[in-house]
Amino acid sequence: MRFVLPVIFCFFMAMNATAQTKKEASFVLVIHGGAGTILKKNMNAEKEEAYKQELTKALQAGYDVLKSGGAAMDAVQAAIMIMEDSPLFNAGKGSVYTGEETVEMDAAVMDGKTLNAGSVAGVKTIRNPITAARAVMEKSKHVMMVGKGAEQFAGQNGIVIVDTSYFHDDNRLRQLRKAKEEERLETEKNKDKGSVDDTLKTDAFYFLNPDKKFGTVGAVALDQNGNLAAGTSTGGMTNKKFGRVGDSPVIGAGTYANNKTCAVSCTGHGEYFIRNVVAHDVSAMMEYGKLTLEKAANKIIHEKLVKQGGSGGLIALDKKGNFSMPFNTEGMYRGYVKADGKIEVLIYK
Amino acid sequence: MRFVLPVIFCFFMAMNATAQTKKEASFVLVIHGGAGTILKKNMNAEKEEAYKQELTKALQAGYDVLKSGGAAMDAVQAAIMIMEDSPLFNAGKGSVYTGEETVEMDAAVMDGKTLNAGSVAGVKTIRNPITAARAVMEKSKHVMMVGKGAEQFAGQNGIVIVDTSYFHDDNRLRQLRKAKEEERLETEKNKDKGSVDDTLKTDAFYFLNPDKKFGTVGAVALDQNGNLAAGTSTGGMTNKKFGRVGDSPVIGAGTYANNKTCAVSCTGHGEYFIRNVVAHDVSAMMEYGKLTLEKAANKIIHEKLVKQGGSGGLIALDKKGNFSMPFNTEGMYRGYVKADGKIEVLIYK
Repeated sequence: MRFVLPVIFCFFMAMNATAQTKKEASFVLVIHGGAGTILKKNMNAEKEEAYKQELTKALQAGYDVLKSGGAAMDAVQAAIMIMEDSPLFNAGKGSVYTGEETVEMDAAVMDGKTLNAGSVAGVKTIRNPITAARAVMEKSKHVMMVGKGAEQFAGQNGIVIVDTSYFHDDNRLRQLRKAKEEERLETEKNKDKGSVDDTLKTDAFYFLNPDKKFGTVGAVALDQNGNLAAGTSTGGMTNKKFGRVGDSPVIGAGTYANNKTCAVSCTGHGEYFIRNVVAHDVSAMMEYGKLTLEKAANKIIHEKLVKQGGSGGLIALDKKGNFSMPFNTEGMYRGYVKADGKIEVLIYK
Repeated sequence: MRFVLPVIFCFFMAMNATAQTKKEASFVLVIHGGAGTILKKNMNAEKEEAYKQELTKALQAGYDVLKSGGAAMDAVQAAIMIMEDSPLFNAGKGSVYTGEETVEMDAAVMDGKTLNAGSVAGVKTIRNPITAARAVMEKSKHVMMVGKGAEQFAGQNGIVIVDTSYFHDDNRLRQLRKAKEEERLETEKNKDKGSVDDTLKTDAFYFLNPDKKFGTVGAVALDQNGNLAAGTSTGGMTNKKFGRVGDSPVIGAGTYANNKTCAVSCTGHGEYFIRNVVAHDVSAMMEYGKLTLEKAANKIIHEKLVKQGGSGGLIALDKKGNFSMPFNTEGMYRGYVKADGKIEVLIYK
């Protein structure tokens, strides 16, 4: 008996240490800052460094939350807020202009444990739309709010409202004017053909996105309690009109999280992502089709979307900490960090 | 040889006749006019007859389209427009009032052949929101438009715009005032408890819907060419605030169609339908989980949603013409018609 107790004690200590090690090893944060025609030849060292720095900062912010035992949702929000506050990404501060020289932002969050979700669309005065989406999830009985109503709700719930001048950016304004000129030329060209239908059917992407980039930021996280969360935030498309809403704030399309399967945040030509219910499709292929996260994510991005001509990418993370970052464009700003704290940031293929 | 040609001729004639019979037998239209606490004891014969007449009229309109070889999408639109124009259903003319005594309507359509989709949310001046959703699908490069932008687009594309007085309805106004009073009492009650959280967590359904009914109309159709289509239109929730958007205009949640699997239109407590991406989930359970339409539809309505406390129902139709109309509430206005032209209309369990 003299030896038995210490042995049992040591056994439990070892178990505990293993459990702790396992726990520590289990948290992961993955982020993206948009996909598109991002080519090394068009990038200078300074610009590349700026992007890498911001992505690193976002990952560090989320990592700090997860490391200290914080919730996946908090890590997602922390990482996204850094990217929203940066003029480099098309979300929050760096949002592109609509056809009316305003910004109209969309954002969504989803909690994989509860399946609770919140989203806002077409908001013009919220500094960090991701915080408004979270307020909708936590402080209302609703999931989705749009326009002025969403802003009013956010304001009443302590979300920071700013003057629209906060979003002013000369570079984005130049992009808008370039887009409008390209649109004018496109319309002109189609008029010569005598066909209205041609204009309507033309893929809007190239003249709506003069920099050939889908600006969206997103994050997915797995915390030490094994919970998943996802969030996405965007300024939409340059020169967008008619209150167009993309996939980002559409639960199931651009954003989805479910502890049973995975957390997903998308970036790309939003219309294709809505029609294909992309984020939920990854989850469904895992749950019902028994595909791995990697296979499900690749199937939608490299097979289904490619067949339809839908450009973009996504980040996905499962409850075991496996993650995938597929994209069918030239590049995607992306990165990840695991419990070891080693931050990895990538841009090109 | 003398006998061979006539025999071959007869054979092809017979083949053709069989093909035609088969074709004629294949088209189906299923509609719903909302689910909720619809009890026979609360209904008088006159009211019941009025509902049945409108549902019959909607089915007849869609049937006429399908019978003459028209597209599933046209049948869906024809049936929904009848219900939108009726003051009995919470969509179009019969839309309930928001907290600001306006109407804010949502609608969506999806084409199962092309996976094209269109939706509008938060529109206040469009007589038939389903026609605006279809215009977004067919005449823009976008899928979803919200608010004034959506109205502007609709107006530019020949969709009928009406003065907001078109939607005035004394009965709906009484419902709103009753809802506001119930909300006031609820807030009061929770204030006494000293808890703000209680108000926030209270299921909004009962005081947002004084008639305990989820008003939404929808249709799914299979045409003679084997194509599926789905559409949904709603006035949302009485006393809704903050630009709340439900599941109806969210592709994948309230509306989805895919020739590979099925067409689905939902009605119910929208927030649950968004979180569960219900319409796409039915399709995914069929595609990846190899469930029949019936089993998939029942699983989401009677198992998944019931577990979460999510009330409502859906109509679903597969490419073989099998359909299902499950609901976990007391009743759902619903009906169907097949090629034989026999119209069936149901209200209670």
